[in-house]
Parts: sequence; C-alpha cells; structure tokens
Amino acid sequence: MLAEVQNIAAEHGRLFPLSLGAEGSCQIGGNISTNAGGTQVLRYGTTRNLVVGLEVVLPDGRIWNGLRGLRKDNSGYDMKQVFIGAEGTLGIITAAVLKLVPRPSSVETAWLGVDSPEASVKLLAAMKAHFGEQVTTFELMRRSIIEFLLAGVPGHENPMCEPHPWYVLVEIAGQGASGSLAEPFADALASAMEAGLMRDAVVATSTAQAKRFRKMREDLAEAQRWTGGTIAHDISVPVSKIPEFLKTADAAMERAYPGIRHCSFGHVGDGNLHYNPVRPADWPPERYRAERANVNRIVHDIVVALGGSITAEHGIGRLRLGENERYKSAVELDLMRSLKHALDPLNIMNPGKVIR
Amino acid sequence: MLAEVQNIAAEHGRLFPLSLGAEGSCQIGGNISTNAGGTQVLRYGTTRNLVVGLEVVLPDGRIWNGLRGLRKDNSGYDMKQVFIGAEGTLGIITAAVLKLVPRPSSVETAWLGVDSPEASVKLLAAMKAHFGEQVTTFELMRRSIIEFLLAGVPGHENPMCEPHPWYVLVEIAGQGASGSLAEPFADALASAMEAGLMRDAVVATSTAQAKRFRKMREDLAEAQRWTGGTIAHDISVPVSKIPEFLKTADAAMERAYPGIRHCSFGHVGDGNLHYNPVRPADWPPERYRAERANVNRIVHDIVVALGGSITAEHGIGRLRLGENERYKSAVELDLMRSLKHALDPLNIMNPGKVIR
Repeated sequence: MLAEVQNIAAEHGRLFPLSLGAEGSCQIGGNISTNAGGTQVLRYGTTRNLVVGLEVVLPDGRIWNGLRGLRKDNSGYDMKQVFIGAEGTLGIITAAVLKLVPRPSSVETAWLGVDSPEASVKLLAAMKAHFGEQVTTFELMRRSIIEFLLAGVPGHENPMCEPHPWYVLVEIAGQGASGSLAEPFADALASAMEAGLMRDAVVATSTAQAKRFRKMREDLAEAQRWTGGTIAHDISVPVSKIPEFLKTADAAMERAYPGIRHCSFGHVGDGNLHYNPVRPADWPPERYRAERANVNRIVHDIVVALGGSITAEHGIGRLRLGENERYKSAVELDLMRSLKHALDPLNIMNPGKVIR
Repeated sequence: MLAEVQNIAAEHGRLFPLSLGAEGSCQIGGNISTNAGGTQVLRYGTTRNLVVGLEVVLPDGRIWNGLRGLRKDNSGYDMKQVFIGAEGTLGIITAAVLKLVPRPSSVETAWLGVDSPEASVKLLAAMKAHFGEQVTTFELMRRSIIEFLLAGVPGHENPMCEPHPWYVLVEIAGQGASGSLAEPFADALASAMEAGLMRDAVVATSTAQAKRFRKMREDLAEAQRWTGGTIAHDISVPVSKIPEFLKTADAAMERAYPGIRHCSFGHVGDGNLHYNPVRPADWPPERYRAERANVNRIVHDIVVALGGSITAEHGIGRLRLGENERYKSAVELDLMRSLKHALDPLNIMNPGKVIR
C-alpha cells in the first residue's frame, strides 16, 4: 500500500514522494502500472520517475527479474519503461525498486486567492523563478469546487473571508533549517501581490494549518461526489495553454448546456486539470449522465486541438479506449499494437484495455 | 548540436541541463538515442528525463509524430521511452521536444581532497542532507588521473599544494540571490571537515576559478589518451557499493597485472564510474591492448556480482554486444529481441548493435 511505503521511508528519514488522494488504499503495483501522478509531480515527476527496477510476470509465465538498484544503466533497451503505465496489459508487476529522496526539513504552505488561470500560470512562473525545483505543489481550484466542498463535506472552513474567483494551494520545501524558507517565501508572495499576480494570501503558521489546506485539496473528489452529477475529464495541455483551454471549454459547455456549473481544479504546474462540469442545478443526475459521450467529445476535441492528452494521469482502461482510437494517429496505434502483440501475442493480459 | 541547445536555452533565461565533454560536437538526436548522461545527472537525470516528445522515422518508412509538449500523458503506451536509448536500432529520431529547467542564479563550486571512496560516499550523503536536489555535480577523481592531467594536458594547475588520495568536484546551485548559498556551503564543508569526511577544500571565489575546476574534470578523457594505454569501463553499481567495487576491482587487477596503474573517476552520485586502468609503465601500449577482453572480463564480472551495469551511460553498440549477452538473463534478452523484431522485423535499423 502506498501509505505504508511513505511511512517506511519516513522511518528512515527519507521521502517517497508519490502522494495522492487514494494513498491509504492503492497498491504500489497499481501505481506503477498506471504511472500514477498526484500532487507532487511538479517536483518529483510521475511514478515512472520513481521506479529504478521491476520484477514482472510475463504473459508466457516466465518472470523477468529487472530488480536493479541502478541510477544509470544503458545496457540495452530499458524494458521497465515498457511495463510502467501499461495498465497490466503487457505483464504483471510483482516487485519494484523505488527511488527515495531527501526529506525536506523546511516546508512553507500557503492558500492564495487569484483572479484567473492566466494569473495563476504567471504566479507559478514567478514562484519557480524564486524557488526552482523547491516548488513542490501548485494546485489551482475554481471557486465553485471550494463552495461545493464547504457545503457538502464536513470539517472544512474557508481560509479567506473575501471570495476569490480562483484559489491556489502552493507548497515549497527545502533542506535548510526549519523555518529558513519563511522569509524568502513571504518576500516572494509580497512581490507577486505587488505585481498583481494574486489578490490575497494566507500562509500556514503551523503544520496543523498546512495539513488543513492540503486536506481541502484532497477532499475535492468527495466534494464532487456530493454534487451528485459531474462528468469527469483528466486532461493535460501545455502549461501555457491552460487559460485558453479553460476559456474555450467553458464557453463550449455553456453553449451546449445552459446552466452548466463549471468545476475545475488540478495540477496546473503539470498542465493537468480535472475538468469536471456539474449538471445544471435543475437537471436530475440521470439526464446529465446520459450526455456523457457528448460532453466528453466537446471537451476532448478542444484538448486535442490544443495538443493535449485526454488522460493525463488516469489512463485509458476500458472507458477511454474508443476515444483514444479516435484521437491517436494510426501510426501511434500501430506502434502500440506491435508492442502489445510482441509481448502478449495471445492477448491474455488485461484484454480489452488500453489497445485492441 | 548540444551546445547550441544550451545556448538557446540560456538566451531565454533557462537551462538545458544535459552537460558533457562532447557538447561542442554531439547531436541531440544522438544524445537521445544513447540516453546520454554527463555531469549533472545527479540533479536532472539522464537525457530520458529531459525528453518530452519525439518524432521518429520508423523502419517501414512512416513517420511517428510524437512531438507533444506535455508533462503528463497516460493515453496508452509511452512509445517515446522505447526509442530513447535504443541506439538507433528501432527508428531514427528526427525531432524532439525538450524540457528546460530554471537557470540557477546562485552557484557554489569547490575542489575537495578526500581520503577514500568511502569518505566520498558519506560526504555526498552529508551534502544531500544539507542541500537536497541542489547538489548538481559530485565527481570523484583518483589522484593518479589528476597527476596524468597535470603532466599531460597543458593549461591546468593543481588547486591544492598537499596531495590527497582522491579528489571531489562538488557544485551546488539554487535560485536565491547570487552568493546566497556561499555561507551555507562554507558551513556544510566545515562540518564535513570536522566529521572527518574530507581533508581539504578550496571553494571557488570567482566564476573563472569554478570554470577552471570544471575544465579539469572535462579534460580527464584527454589526460587518459595522453597515458597512451587505458582500457575503459563505464560501469555503474548501487552508490553504496562504490567503495566495495573499487577495492575488489583494484585488487583483482593488481593480481592479474602487477604494475598496473589505477585510474578511476566519475559520477559517484549516480553510482557511475569510468574505471580505466592504465598499462604498467614498462608495457608497450599494444601489449596491454591485447589484454582488453581479459581486463573487461575481470572488471565486469565484479560489476555484475555487485548488481551493477557494464555500461552506465555509453551504451552497448557493437563493442559490448557479446558481453551483454553473457551477463543479461535469457528472459531479458528475449524481451529485447521481441521488441526489436516487433518494430524492425527486417533488421534494417543499425543492425548488429545492441541486440542480435
């Protein structure tokens, strides 16, 4: 289980930086098979980046022992890359060598109010200019999803009295003495405020408060369920295209479904948004659900036109199989089929997923 | 050309962090095809880590356009991973989308004298505990290779009067104001000295001096050529096994070739050493060259017994083809063959390299 790996790393004074809402239940083999993302990809990369070696049971029943603990190895094709993110369609991952990183000793967390996605992308660039890779988390949330959270999920309170159109959860983390980033962080936020990149900031003054901010982000999935009717998209576009994507997709959805309630949040630093419009308030959930294919089509056409991906971190599975065939080039689908056929000619590994 | 990419990134205030001795002549397509390493892998990873999208001409003449600029994309198998490091045996890379990183604004460089590889591994851990990912370069060099450099390559001078058995080139880089890392760096070096992890340190007080230190490391390949007879190994082992590898390999070489001159240097933070013993002083180069297969065998048997790789960054090519077959498991060779056959059934792409 992911949380166990995190804990074992912590006991040894290290960090296993994969962090996501399901960490209390998801398995490492699944994280690797799906190349899981989460809230710290900005700094540490996806799961692919954290895997050093693999053991895989192959479709023919043989076991490939690739459990090497090497940071550099160019002795032939890097076969582990083929199994990472293949959703179990090429083999079953049974063991792994994982990369741990130094545990940051100085962490600063803030909840920010911002005007727009444009401002948030500029703010991210400003934070990276100040802190480089120390920017660990940068999550954008539309006001509506925070309102759903406060209305529908107990135990949360609004960090800010004034409402803002968008919020950002930002975290920076370094190796210096605890508190050593506090002053540079406050300075960076002050200059961002002066430059008009944000409207308000609440810096967490205790780890308890930082935890509450993070918990708000983690519980957004629950807030969505509470609305009783969202259609989910896990999309990515180049980071600079995030504002354009939101503007275009919001307008298209309003045209097609007057009264639709916008709802989006996600890992803006990775160009990855969970774009999950909520049914018009007067529509019963089943009426909205029946529109799923059409809503997906509207959103994903825009994503692909912007050079994006229809599944940034959740994968293809069965759900996106047909759509993926629609959007991928014939050449790429052929490459995927060649790989699948080469490793699993009898199509016995998770058939009907990813590629057919 | 790699240096051109570095320069273009610099003109835009960014850094393309791939950095290696051949950067004035090597091509990006080659860097990607060989998954090139270099002196900043410790912080930024190998070339694989810096590639976001690829265009590849396939063996059947079709072009795969995978030039996506996405940080996250789980829409099926990540086909670019297959071509990175495949040494041109699966297709020809004709274009790429590369990742740039923030340009560090505060850099500290030092030349250190250390007692042993053990001490250097501990010193690396201490530096990482202080500076985390800001440790950009950590290169270990045996005294002999520095002596070859000073004797054989003009334009270098010894940064230290006292001789030391091993030297380390360390560089840390961050985003703060220029000079802001100077004091923490001096403090960290002072505690390392107190803890007995090193014998002496010269911190570069100008960019010119830092450049001279780096140039010494870059010119080691030339120093080797000057000796007129080395047998090269580009090996990796888990970082913690570096001292054991050196002890065992040095002893085995002395037994087999009395008078052999040890010569090793490399990226200790990546577990990657260039282990290049030099002919005994009274042996003509051709006599030593004739021993190459035997020397390779001695060194590589030790590497593989320690869970290492016989080619950390230089790749298989034709030279290591037979050896790779000797050391890789049958299962892994079969996996590689399946992949090769699936993508290049007629074996027209760089035949006779990597796998047969």
